[in-house]
Amino acid sequence: MNYKELVNKIKMKQSFLCIGLDTDIDKIPNHLKSCDDPVFQFNKEIIDSTHDITVAYKPNIAFYECCGEQGWKSLKRTVEYIRNQYPDIFLIADAKRGDIGNTSKMYAKTFFKKYDFDAVTVSPYMGSDSIKPFLEYESKWVIILALTSNTGADDFQKLSLSNYNHLYEKVIETCQTWGNINNTMFVVGATQAEMLLEIRKIIPEHFLLIPGIGAQGGDINQVANFGMTFHCGLLVNSSRNILYASSGTDFAEIARKNAQEVQTEMNIILKKTVL
Amino acid sequence: MNYKELVNKIKMKQSFLCIGLDTDIDKIPNHLKSCDDPVFQFNKEIIDSTHDITVAYKPNIAFYECCGEQGWKSLKRTVEYIRNQYPDIFLIADAKRGDIGNTSKMYAKTFFKKYDFDAVTVSPYMGSDSIKPFLEYESKWVIILALTSNTGADDFQKLSLSNYNHLYEKVIETCQTWGNINNTMFVVGATQAEMLLEIRKIIPEHFLLIPGIGAQGGDINQVANFGMTFHCGLLVNSSRNILYASSGTDFAEIARKNAQEVQTEMNIILKKTVL
Repeated sequence: MNYKELVNKIKMKQSFLCIGLDTDIDKIPNHLKSCDDPVFQFNKEIIDSTHDITVAYKPNIAFYECCGEQGWKSLKRTVEYIRNQYPDIFLIADAKRGDIGNTSKMYAKTFFKKYDFDAVTVSPYMGSDSIKPFLEYESKWVIILALTSNTGADDFQKLSLSNYNHLYEKVIETCQTWGNINNTMFVVGATQAEMLLEIRKIIPEHFLLIPGIGAQGGDINQVANFGMTFHCGLLVNSSRNILYASSGTDFAEIARKNAQEVQTEMNIILKKTVL
Repeated sequence: MNYKELVNKIKMKQSFLCIGLDTDIDKIPNHLKSCDDPVFQFNKEIIDSTHDITVAYKPNIAFYECCGEQGWKSLKRTVEYIRNQYPDIFLIADAKRGDIGNTSKMYAKTFFKKYDFDAVTVSPYMGSDSIKPFLEYESKWVIILALTSNTGADDFQKLSLSNYNHLYEKVIETCQTWGNINNTMFVVGATQAEMLLEIRKIIPEHFLLIPGIGAQGGDINQVANFGMTFHCGLLVNSSRNILYASSGTDFAEIARKNAQEVQTEMNIILKKTVL
Protein backbone atom coordinates (compact mmCIF):
# COMPACT_ATOMS: atom_id res chain seq x y z
CA MET A 1 0.00 0.00 0.00
CA ASN A 2 1.44 3.43 -0.90
CA TYR A 3 0.79 6.91 0.49
CA LYS A 4 -2.07 7.71 -1.87
CA GLU A 5 -3.82 4.41 -1.28
CA LEU A 6 -3.59 4.88 2.47
CA VAL A 7 -5.02 8.40 2.19
CA ASN A 8 -7.90 7.01 0.11
CA LYS A 9 -8.74 4.39 2.73
CA ILE A 10 -8.84 7.11 5.37
CA LYS A 11 -11.22 9.20 3.26
CA MET A 12 -13.41 6.23 2.46
CA LYS A 13 -13.77 5.08 6.07
CA GLN A 14 -13.66 8.63 7.48
CA SER A 15 -11.29 7.25 10.05
CA PHE A 16 -7.59 7.41 10.82
CA LEU A 17 -7.90 4.93 13.65
CA CYS A 18 -5.39 2.15 14.25
CA ILE A 19 -6.45 -0.50 16.76
CA GLY A 20 -3.57 -1.93 18.75
CA LEU A 21 -3.94 -5.67 19.20
CA ASP A 22 -2.06 -5.82 22.53
CA THR A 23 -3.84 -9.06 23.28
CA ASP A 24 -2.96 -10.14 26.79
CA ILE A 25 -3.94 -13.71 27.57
CA ASP A 26 -4.52 -12.68 31.21
CA LYS A 27 -6.94 -9.89 30.28
CA ILE A 28 -9.22 -11.49 27.71
CA PRO A 29 -12.74 -12.52 28.79
CA ASN A 30 -12.97 -15.75 30.78
CA HIS A 31 -15.44 -17.40 28.44
CA LEU A 32 -12.78 -17.43 25.68
CA LYS A 33 -10.12 -19.16 27.74
CA SER A 34 -11.39 -22.65 26.99
CA CYS A 35 -11.09 -22.06 23.22
CA ASP A 36 -8.48 -23.90 21.23
CA ASP A 37 -6.66 -20.58 20.53
CA PRO A 38 -8.06 -17.87 22.87
CA VAL A 39 -5.79 -15.06 21.60
CA PHE A 40 -6.79 -15.61 17.97
CA GLN A 41 -10.47 -15.99 18.89
CA PHE A 42 -10.36 -12.70 20.82
CA ASN A 43 -8.63 -10.92 17.91
CA LYS A 44 -11.06 -12.39 15.38
CA GLU A 45 -14.09 -11.09 17.27
CA ILE A 46 -12.51 -7.64 17.78
CA ILE A 47 -11.61 -7.47 14.08
CA ASP A 48 -15.01 -8.65 12.83
CA SER A 49 -16.62 -6.04 14.99
CA THR A 50 -14.41 -3.04 14.07
CA HIS A 51 -12.86 -3.56 10.60
CA ASP A 52 -15.15 -1.06 8.83
CA ILE A 53 -14.30 1.85 11.16
CA THR A 54 -10.55 1.31 11.53
CA VAL A 55 -7.88 1.79 8.88
CA ALA A 56 -5.18 -0.28 10.57
CA TYR A 57 -4.50 -2.99 13.13
CA LYS A 58 -1.27 -3.09 15.07
CA PRO A 59 -0.42 -6.33 16.90
CA ASN A 60 2.11 -5.60 19.64
CA ILE A 61 4.60 -8.41 19.13
CA ALA A 62 5.64 -8.60 22.81
CA PHE A 63 2.19 -9.94 23.70
CA TYR A 64 2.50 -12.82 21.24
CA GLU A 65 6.18 -13.55 21.84
CA CYS A 66 5.52 -14.06 25.55
CA CYS A 67 3.29 -17.04 24.70
CA GLY A 68 6.16 -18.76 22.85
CA GLU A 69 5.38 -20.93 19.83
CA GLN A 70 1.64 -20.75 20.52
CA GLY A 71 1.87 -16.94 20.49
CA TRP A 72 3.49 -16.90 17.07
CA LYS A 73 0.82 -19.29 15.83
CA SER A 74 -1.92 -16.94 17.10
CA LEU A 75 -0.15 -14.01 15.42
CA LYS A 76 0.08 -15.84 12.10
CA ARG A 77 -3.60 -16.82 12.22
CA THR A 78 -4.53 -13.21 13.01
CA VAL A 79 -2.53 -11.85 10.07
CA GLU A 80 -3.93 -14.47 7.70
CA TYR A 81 -7.46 -13.83 8.87
CA ILE A 82 -7.15 -10.09 8.21
CA ARG A 83 -5.50 -10.67 4.82
CA ASN A 84 -8.24 -13.08 3.71
CA GLN A 85 -11.30 -11.37 5.15
CA TYR A 86 -10.41 -7.67 5.09
CA PRO A 87 -7.74 -7.02 2.46
CA ASP A 88 -8.18 -3.24 2.72
CA ILE A 89 -6.59 -3.16 6.20
CA PHE A 90 -3.13 -1.62 6.80
CA LEU A 91 -1.28 -4.04 9.04
CA ILE A 92 1.50 -2.90 11.40
CA ALA A 93 3.88 -5.14 13.37
CA ASP A 94 4.70 -3.18 16.52
CA ALA A 95 8.06 -4.83 17.04
CA LYS A 96 10.49 -1.93 17.67
CA ARG A 97 13.34 -3.97 16.17
CA GLY A 98 16.69 -2.65 14.96
CA ASP A 99 20.12 -4.31 14.68
CA ILE A 100 23.20 -4.33 12.43
CA GLY A 101 22.49 -4.66 8.69
CA ASN A 102 22.58 -8.45 8.27
CA THR A 103 20.33 -8.93 11.33
CA SER A 104 17.84 -6.20 10.40
CA LYS A 105 17.58 -7.96 7.03
CA MET A 106 16.34 -11.06 8.90
CA TYR A 107 13.79 -9.02 10.86
CA ALA A 108 12.53 -7.40 7.65
CA LYS A 109 12.17 -10.81 5.99
CA THR A 110 10.26 -12.12 9.01
CA PHE A 111 7.66 -9.37 9.18
CA PHE A 112 7.28 -8.60 5.46
CA LYS A 113 7.64 -12.06 3.90
CA LYS A 114 6.82 -14.65 6.54
CA TYR A 115 4.01 -12.65 8.17
CA ASP A 116 2.95 -10.27 5.35
CA PHE A 117 2.72 -7.09 7.44
CA ASP A 118 2.56 -3.72 5.63
CA ALA A 119 4.78 -1.98 8.16
CA VAL A 120 7.15 -2.57 11.09
CA THR A 121 8.08 -0.20 13.91
CA VAL A 122 11.86 0.14 14.40
CA SER A 123 14.19 1.89 16.83
CA PRO A 124 16.63 4.36 15.23
CA TYR A 125 19.44 4.06 17.81
CA MET A 126 21.70 1.87 15.61
CA GLY A 127 21.40 4.16 12.58
CA SER A 128 21.19 3.72 8.81
CA ASP A 129 22.14 0.07 8.26
CA SER A 130 19.63 -0.96 10.95
CA ILE A 131 16.78 0.72 9.06
CA LYS A 132 17.59 0.51 5.35
CA PRO A 133 16.92 -3.27 4.99
CA PHE A 134 13.25 -2.53 5.78
CA LEU A 135 13.14 -0.02 2.91
CA GLU A 136 14.12 -2.57 0.28
CA TYR A 137 10.62 -4.04 0.07
CA GLU A 138 8.19 -2.63 -2.49
CA SER A 139 4.96 -1.20 -0.99
CA LYS A 140 6.12 -1.85 2.58
CA TRP A 141 6.79 0.72 5.30
CA VAL A 142 9.18 1.34 8.13
CA ILE A 143 7.81 3.28 11.12
CA ILE A 144 10.67 4.86 13.05
CA LEU A 145 10.49 5.78 16.74
CA ALA A 146 10.96 9.54 17.04
CA LEU A 147 9.27 10.97 20.14
CA THR A 148 7.44 8.31 22.10
CA SER A 149 4.49 8.60 24.48
CA ASN A 150 6.15 7.20 27.62
CA THR A 151 7.82 9.05 30.47
CA GLY A 152 11.23 7.65 29.42
CA ALA A 153 11.00 9.77 26.24
CA ASP A 154 12.51 12.59 28.33
CA ASP A 155 15.71 10.66 29.07
CA PHE A 156 17.32 10.71 25.63
CA GLN A 157 14.88 11.73 22.88
CA LYS A 158 14.56 15.28 24.21
CA LEU A 159 18.28 15.85 24.81
CA SER A 160 19.62 19.07 23.34
CA LEU A 161 22.23 18.61 20.64
CA SER A 162 24.98 21.03 19.74
CA ASN A 163 23.35 22.02 16.44
CA TYR A 164 19.73 20.93 16.85
CA ASN A 165 17.03 21.51 19.38
CA HIS A 166 16.48 17.87 20.27
CA LEU A 167 17.69 14.40 19.41
CA TYR A 168 14.27 13.33 18.08
CA GLU A 169 14.33 16.19 15.55
CA LYS A 170 17.74 15.07 14.29
CA VAL A 171 16.41 11.48 14.08
CA ILE A 172 13.48 12.63 11.95
CA GLU A 173 15.59 14.90 9.76
CA THR A 174 18.20 12.19 9.08
CA CYS A 175 15.92 9.17 8.68
CA GLN A 176 13.54 10.89 6.25
CA THR A 177 16.43 11.15 3.76
CA TRP A 178 16.76 7.33 3.63
CA GLY A 179 13.25 6.76 2.31
CA ASN A 180 10.28 8.80 1.17
CA ILE A 181 6.65 9.51 2.07
CA ASN A 182 5.60 6.21 0.48
CA ASN A 183 7.68 3.98 2.76
CA THR A 184 8.54 5.90 5.95
CA MET A 185 6.47 7.02 8.93
CA PHE A 186 7.48 8.23 12.39
CA VAL A 187 6.10 7.46 15.84
CA VAL A 188 5.15 10.56 17.82
CA GLY A 189 3.27 10.07 21.09
CA ALA A 190 -0.10 11.79 21.54
CA THR A 191 1.19 12.92 24.92
CA GLN A 192 3.68 15.09 23.02
CA ALA A 193 1.07 16.93 20.89
CA GLU A 194 2.57 20.41 21.28
CA MET A 195 5.83 19.14 19.69
CA LEU A 196 3.98 18.23 16.48
CA LEU A 197 4.12 21.80 15.23
CA GLU A 198 7.94 21.71 15.14
CA ILE A 199 7.94 18.19 13.69
CA ARG A 200 5.67 19.27 10.84
CA LYS A 201 8.26 21.91 9.87
CA ILE A 202 10.74 19.06 9.21
CA ILE A 203 8.31 16.57 7.63
CA PRO A 204 5.22 18.40 6.34
CA GLU A 205 3.82 15.36 4.52
CA HIS A 206 4.97 12.11 6.16
CA PHE A 207 2.48 9.93 7.97
CA LEU A 208 2.85 9.83 11.75
CA LEU A 209 1.78 6.91 13.91
CA ILE A 210 0.41 8.38 17.14
CA PRO A 211 0.10 6.11 20.17
CA GLY A 212 -0.98 7.31 23.59
CA ILE A 213 -4.59 8.46 23.35
CA GLY A 214 -6.88 6.98 25.99
CA ALA A 215 -5.07 5.00 28.71
CA GLN A 216 -1.88 7.06 28.32
CA GLY A 217 -3.70 10.42 28.44
CA GLY A 218 -3.25 11.93 24.94
CA ASP A 219 -6.02 13.97 23.29
CA ILE A 220 -7.08 13.36 19.71
CA ASN A 221 -8.23 16.92 18.96
CA GLN A 222 -4.95 18.35 20.14
CA VAL A 223 -3.06 15.85 17.99
CA ALA A 224 -5.13 16.81 14.94
CA ASN A 225 -4.73 20.54 15.65
CA PHE A 226 -0.95 20.35 15.68
CA GLY A 227 -0.17 17.38 13.44
CA MET A 228 -2.78 16.92 10.71
CA THR A 229 -1.94 17.66 7.07
CA PHE A 230 -4.23 18.30 4.09
CA HIS A 231 -4.01 14.56 3.38
CA CYS A 232 -4.52 13.66 7.04
CA GLY A 233 -1.01 12.22 7.58
CA LEU A 234 -1.98 10.62 10.88
CA LEU A 235 -2.75 7.16 12.16
CA VAL A 236 -3.92 7.41 15.76
CA ASN A 237 -3.65 4.23 17.79
CA SER A 238 -5.88 3.05 20.60
CA SER A 239 -5.41 -0.31 22.31
CA ARG A 240 -6.53 -0.88 25.88
CA ASN A 241 -9.57 1.45 25.74
CA ILE A 242 -11.03 -0.60 22.90
CA LEU A 243 -9.85 -4.15 23.67
CA TYR A 244 -10.64 -4.33 27.36
CA ALA A 245 -13.71 -2.10 27.70
CA SER A 246 -15.75 -5.13 28.77
CA SER A 247 -14.68 -8.50 30.10
CA GLY A 248 -18.07 -10.07 29.42
CA THR A 249 -19.44 -11.92 26.40
CA ASP A 250 -20.33 -8.49 24.97
CA PHE A 251 -16.62 -7.48 24.74
CA ALA A 252 -16.58 -7.16 20.93
CA GLU A 253 -19.79 -5.10 20.91
CA ILE A 254 -18.45 -2.70 23.57
CA ALA A 255 -15.11 -2.55 21.73
CA ARG A 256 -17.02 -1.40 18.64
CA LYS A 257 -18.92 1.17 20.69
CA ASN A 258 -15.67 2.67 21.98
CA ALA A 259 -14.00 2.53 18.55
CA GLN A 260 -17.10 4.16 17.06
CA GLU A 261 -16.83 7.05 19.52
CA VAL A 262 -13.25 7.69 18.41
CA GLN A 263 -14.22 7.35 14.74
CA THR A 264 -17.05 9.87 15.17
CA GLU A 265 -14.56 12.39 16.53
CA MET A 266 -12.25 11.59 13.60
CA ASN A 267 -15.07 12.07 11.12
CA ILE A 268 -15.71 15.60 12.46
CA ILE A 269 -11.99 16.44 12.36
CA LEU A 270 -11.55 15.08 8.81
CA LYS A 271 -14.52 17.08 7.52
CA LYS A 272 -12.94 20.27 8.81
CA THR A 273 -9.38 19.62 7.63
CA VAL A 274 -8.71 17.15 4.84
CA LEU A 275 -8.92 18.06 1.15
CA MET B 1 24.58 -15.20 38.09
CA ASN B 2 26.08 -12.08 39.70
CA TYR B 3 29.22 -10.07 38.89
CA LYS B 4 31.53 -12.09 41.14
CA GLU B 5 30.28 -15.43 39.82
CA LEU B 6 30.79 -14.28 36.23
CA VAL B 7 34.34 -13.13 37.03
CA ASN B 8 35.04 -16.53 38.61
CA LYS B 9 33.86 -18.37 35.49
CA ILE B 10 36.17 -16.23 33.37
CA LYS B 11 39.12 -17.00 35.63
CA MET B 12 38.31 -20.71 35.71
CA LYS B 13 38.00 -21.07 31.93
CA GLN B 14 40.69 -18.45 31.19
CA SER B 15 38.28 -17.12 28.60
CA PHE B 16 36.00 -14.14 28.17
CA LEU B 17 34.59 -15.46 24.93
CA CYS B 18 30.90 -15.28 24.05
CA ILE B 19 29.85 -17.33 21.03
CA GLY B 20 27.02 -15.76 19.06
CA LEU B 21 24.53 -18.37 17.92
CA ASP B 22 23.43 -16.47 14.78
CA THR B 23 22.26 -19.74 13.33
CA ASP B 24 21.17 -19.16 9.76
CA ILE B 25 19.23 -22.07 8.29
CA ASP B 26 20.68 -21.17 4.85
CA LYS B 27 24.29 -21.33 6.06
CA ILE B 28 24.41 -24.54 8.10
CA PRO B 29 26.07 -27.60 6.58
CA ASN B 30 23.98 -29.49 4.04
CA HIS B 31 24.22 -32.84 5.83
CA LEU B 32 22.21 -31.36 8.75
CA LYS B 33 19.32 -30.15 6.64
CA SER B 34 17.52 -33.48 6.66
CA CYS B 35 17.45 -33.55 10.48
CA ASP B 36 14.18 -33.16 12.31
CA ASP B 37 15.39 -29.78 13.74
CA PRO B 38 18.52 -28.66 11.82
CA VAL B 39 18.98 -25.38 13.73
CA PHE B 40 18.95 -27.13 17.11
CA GLN B 41 21.20 -29.94 15.84
CA PHE B 42 23.72 -27.38 14.55
CA ASN B 43 23.65 -25.47 17.86
CA LYS B 44 23.99 -28.67 19.89
CA GLU B 45 27.12 -29.76 18.03
CA ILE B 46 28.67 -26.28 18.26
CA ILE B 47 27.89 -26.15 22.00
CA ASP B 48 29.18 -29.68 22.74
CA SER B 49 32.36 -28.77 20.95
CA THR B 50 33.05 -25.36 22.57
CA HIS B 51 31.35 -25.19 26.02
CA ASP B 52 34.58 -25.57 28.00
CA ILE B 53 36.37 -22.65 26.32
CA THR B 54 33.50 -20.14 26.15
CA VAL B 55 31.86 -18.32 29.04
CA ALA B 56 28.67 -17.36 27.24
CA TYR B 57 26.41 -18.15 24.29
CA LYS B 58 24.35 -15.46 22.64
CA PRO B 59 21.53 -16.60 20.33
CA ASN B 60 20.60 -13.76 17.97
CA ILE B 61 16.82 -13.81 18.19
CA ALA B 62 16.28 -12.51 14.62
CA PHE B 63 17.64 -15.78 13.21
CA TYR B 64 15.10 -17.85 15.15
CA GLU B 65 12.17 -15.47 14.74
CA CYS B 66 12.52 -15.64 10.96
CA CYS B 67 11.71 -19.36 11.07
CA GLY B 68 8.38 -18.67 12.82
CA GLU B 69 7.04 -21.20 15.32
CA GLN B 70 9.73 -23.72 14.39
CA GLY B 71 12.42 -21.12 15.11
CA TRP B 72 11.09 -20.48 18.60
CA LYS B 73 10.98 -24.23 19.18
CA SER B 74 14.66 -24.53 18.14
CA LEU B 75 15.52 -21.63 20.43
CA LYS B 76 13.74 -23.23 23.39
CA ARG B 77 15.47 -26.56 22.80
CA THR B 78 18.84 -24.78 22.59
CA VAL B 79 18.28 -22.94 25.88
CA GLU B 80 17.07 -26.10 27.62
CA TYR B 81 20.01 -28.11 26.30
CA ILE B 82 22.51 -25.58 27.64
CA ARG B 83 20.71 -25.33 31.00
CA ASN B 84 20.65 -29.12 31.44
CA GLN B 85 24.08 -30.03 30.09
CA TYR B 86 26.23 -27.00 30.87
CA PRO B 87 24.71 -25.06 33.79
CA ASP B 88 27.83 -22.89 34.18
CA ILE B 89 27.12 -21.04 30.89
CA PHE B 90 26.01 -17.37 30.86
CA LEU B 91 23.16 -17.15 28.37
CA ILE B 92 22.35 -13.94 26.49
CA ALA B 93 19.26 -13.27 24.34
CA ASP B 94 20.43 -10.83 21.68
CA ALA B 95 17.01 -9.30 21.15
CA LYS B 96 17.59 -5.53 21.24
CA ARG B 97 14.06 -4.99 22.55
CA GLY B 98 12.71 -1.87 24.26
CA ASP B 99 9.18 -0.45 24.51
CA ILE B 100 6.95 1.43 26.96
CA GLY B 101 6.87 0.03 30.50
CA ASN B 102 3.97 -2.42 30.25
CA THR B 103 5.34 -3.87 27.01
CA SER B 104 8.95 -4.12 28.20
CA LYS B 105 7.53 -6.04 31.16
CA MET B 106 6.22 -8.63 28.68
CA TYR B 107 9.59 -8.86 26.91
CA ALA B 108 11.38 -9.32 30.25
CA LYS B 109 8.95 -12.08 31.23
CA THR B 110 9.49 -13.82 27.89
CA PHE B 111 13.28 -13.93 28.00
CA PHE B 112 13.81 -14.39 31.75
CA LYS B 113 10.87 -16.63 32.70
CA LYS B 114 9.70 -18.44 29.59
CA TYR B 115 13.20 -18.95 28.10
CA ASP B 116 15.43 -18.70 31.22
CA PHE B 117 18.12 -16.44 29.72
CA ASP B 118 20.57 -14.73 32.09
CA ALA B 119 20.60 -11.49 30.10
CA VAL B 120 18.80 -9.59 27.31
CA THR B 121 20.17 -6.86 25.04
CA VAL B 122 17.95 -3.75 24.92
CA SER B 123 17.90 -0.46 23.04
CA PRO B 124 17.98 2.66 25.25
CA TYR B 125 16.10 5.01 22.88
CA MET B 126 12.80 4.89 24.81
CA GLY B 127 14.44 5.61 28.18
CA SER B 128 13.97 4.49 31.78
CA ASP B 129 10.58 2.75 31.74
CA SER B 130 11.69 0.69 28.73
CA ILE B 131 14.69 -0.69 30.66
CA LYS B 132 13.69 -0.87 34.32
CA PRO B 133 11.31 -3.87 33.95
CA PHE B 134 14.34 -5.98 33.01
CA LEU B 135 16.07 -4.95 36.27
CA GLU B 136 13.29 -6.34 38.46
CA TYR B 137 14.52 -9.94 38.13
CA GLU B 138 16.99 -11.29 40.69
CA SER B 139 20.32 -12.49 39.21
CA LYS B 140 19.35 -11.40 35.69
CA TRP B 141 21.04 -8.76 33.54
CA VAL B 142 20.13 -6.08 31.06
CA ILE B 143 22.73 -5.32 28.38
CA ILE B 144 22.14 -1.83 26.99
CA LEU B 145 23.25 -0.71 23.51
CA ALA B 146 25.74 2.12 23.94
CA LEU B 147 28.19 2.34 21.02
CA THR B 148 27.59 -0.38 18.47
CA SER B 149 29.95 -1.98 15.96
CA ASN B 150 28.08 -1.09 12.76
CA THR B 151 28.55 1.88 10.41
CA GLY B 152 25.17 3.30 11.47
CA ALA B 153 26.64 3.93 14.95
CA ASP B 154 27.91 7.25 13.52
CA ASP B 155 24.40 8.51 12.71
CA PHE B 156 23.09 9.12 16.22
CA GLN B 157 25.25 7.47 18.91
CA LYS B 158 28.20 9.77 18.21
CA LEU B 159 26.20 13.00 18.02
CA SER B 160 27.58 15.82 20.13
CA LEU B 161 25.29 16.97 22.91
CA SER B 162 25.18 20.41 24.45
CA ASN B 163 26.73 19.27 27.74
CA TYR B 164 28.37 15.94 26.84
CA ASN B 165 30.81 14.76 24.26
CA HIS B 166 28.55 12.15 22.69
CA LEU B 167 25.07 10.67 23.00
CA TYR B 168 26.45 7.20 23.85
CA GLU B 169 28.33 8.64 26.85
CA LYS B 170 25.13 10.22 28.15
CA VAL B 171 23.33 6.89 27.62
CA ILE B 172 25.96 5.06 29.69
CA GLU B 173 26.06 7.73 32.40
CA THR B 174 22.27 7.80 32.78
CA CYS B 175 21.51 4.07 32.46
CA GLN B 176 24.17 2.97 34.96
CA THR B 177 22.25 4.86 37.69
CA TRP B 178 19.18 2.61 37.16
CA GLY B 179 20.99 -0.61 38.08
CA ASN B 180 24.39 -1.69 39.31
CA ILE B 181 27.39 -3.76 38.25
CA ASN B 182 25.52 -6.95 39.16
CA ASN B 183 22.67 -6.46 36.70
CA THR B 184 23.77 -4.01 33.99
CA MET B 185 26.21 -4.29 31.08
CA PHE B 186 26.72 -2.14 27.99
CA VAL B 187 27.34 -3.05 24.35
CA VAL B 188 30.44 -1.39 22.88
CA GLY B 189 31.58 -2.53 19.45
CA ALA B 190 35.14 -3.85 19.05
CA THR B 191 35.40 -1.55 16.02
CA GLN B 192 35.21 1.36 18.51
CA ALA B 193 38.14 0.22 20.70
CA GLU B 194 39.74 3.66 21.04
CA MET B 195 36.52 4.98 22.65
CA LEU B 196 36.81 2.44 25.47
CA LEU B 197 39.26 4.64 27.35
CA GLU B 198 36.64 7.39 27.72
CA ILE B 199 33.91 4.86 28.51
CA ARG B 200 36.00 3.37 31.34
CA LYS B 201 36.15 6.83 32.95
CA ILE B 202 32.34 6.71 33.30
CA ILE B 203 31.99 3.02 34.21
CA PRO B 204 35.28 1.67 35.55
CA GLU B 205 33.82 -1.66 36.69
CA HIS B 206 30.78 -2.61 34.58
CA PHE B 207 30.95 -5.55 32.22
CA LEU B 208 30.93 -4.67 28.53
CA LEU B 209 29.65 -6.95 25.80
CA ILE B 210 31.92 -6.46 22.79
CA PRO B 211 30.69 -7.60 19.38
CA GLY B 212 32.56 -7.01 16.15
CA ILE B 213 35.81 -8.98 16.32
CA GLY B 214 36.44 -11.19 13.30
CA ALA B 215 34.00 -10.64 10.42
CA GLN B 216 33.36 -7.02 11.43
CA GLY B 217 37.08 -6.17 11.77
CA GLY B 218 37.60 -5.47 15.50
CA ASP B 219 40.84 -6.52 17.25
CA ILE B 220 40.79 -8.34 20.57
CA ASN B 221 44.15 -7.03 21.84
CA GLN B 222 43.11 -3.45 21.19
CA VAL B 223 39.83 -4.05 23.01
CA ALA B 224 41.68 -5.50 26.02
CA ASN B 225 44.24 -2.67 26.01
CA PHE B 226 41.58 0.01 26.24
CA GLY B 227 38.69 -1.73 27.99
CA MET B 228 39.85 -4.45 30.35
CA THR B 229 39.57 -3.98 34.13
CA PHE B 230 41.32 -5.80 36.97
CA HIS B 231 38.33 -8.18 37.02
CA CYS B 232 38.29 -8.50 33.24
CA GLY B 233 34.95 -6.70 32.73
CA LEU B 234 34.66 -7.88 29.14
CA LEU B 235 32.69 -10.46 27.20
CA VAL B 236 33.95 -10.53 23.62
CA ASN B 237 31.59 -12.01 21.09
CA SER B 238 32.42 -13.93 17.94
CA SER B 239 29.76 -15.45 15.70
CA ARG B 240 30.38 -16.03 12.00
CA ASN B 241 34.12 -16.80 12.32
CA ILE B 242 33.32 -19.71 14.62
CA LEU B 243 29.96 -20.97 13.33
CA TYR B 244 30.66 -21.02 9.61
CA ALA B 245 34.38 -21.80 9.44
CA SER B 246 33.56 -25.07 7.68
CA SER B 247 30.45 -26.23 5.85
CA GLY B 248 31.48 -29.88 5.99
CA THR B 249 30.78 -32.64 8.50
CA ASP B 250 33.80 -31.34 10.45
CA PHE B 251 32.08 -27.98 11.15
CA ALA B 252 31.98 -28.42 14.94
CA GLU B 253 35.63 -29.46 15.08
CA ILE B 254 36.75 -26.45 13.00
CA ALA B 255 34.49 -24.20 15.10
CA ARG B 256 36.37 -25.43 18.18
CA LYS B 257 39.71 -24.82 16.47
CA ASN B 258 38.74 -21.20 15.73
CA ALA B 259 37.27 -20.67 19.21
CA GLN B 260 40.42 -22.18 20.71
CA GLU B 261 42.59 -19.68 18.84
CA VAL B 262 40.59 -16.81 20.33
CA GLN B 263 40.69 -18.40 23.80
CA THR B 264 44.47 -18.80 23.60
CA GLU B 265 44.79 -15.07 22.91
CA MET B 266 42.42 -14.39 25.82
CA ASN B 267 44.44 -16.62 28.11
CA ILE B 268 47.60 -14.59 27.38
CA ILE B 269 45.75 -11.30 27.93
CA LEU B 270 44.17 -12.49 31.19
CA LYS B 271 47.52 -13.63 32.59
CA LYS B 272 48.94 -10.16 32.01
CA THR B 273 46.01 -8.16 33.33
CA VAL B 274 43.51 -9.72 35.68
CA LEU B 275 44.03 -9.94 39.45
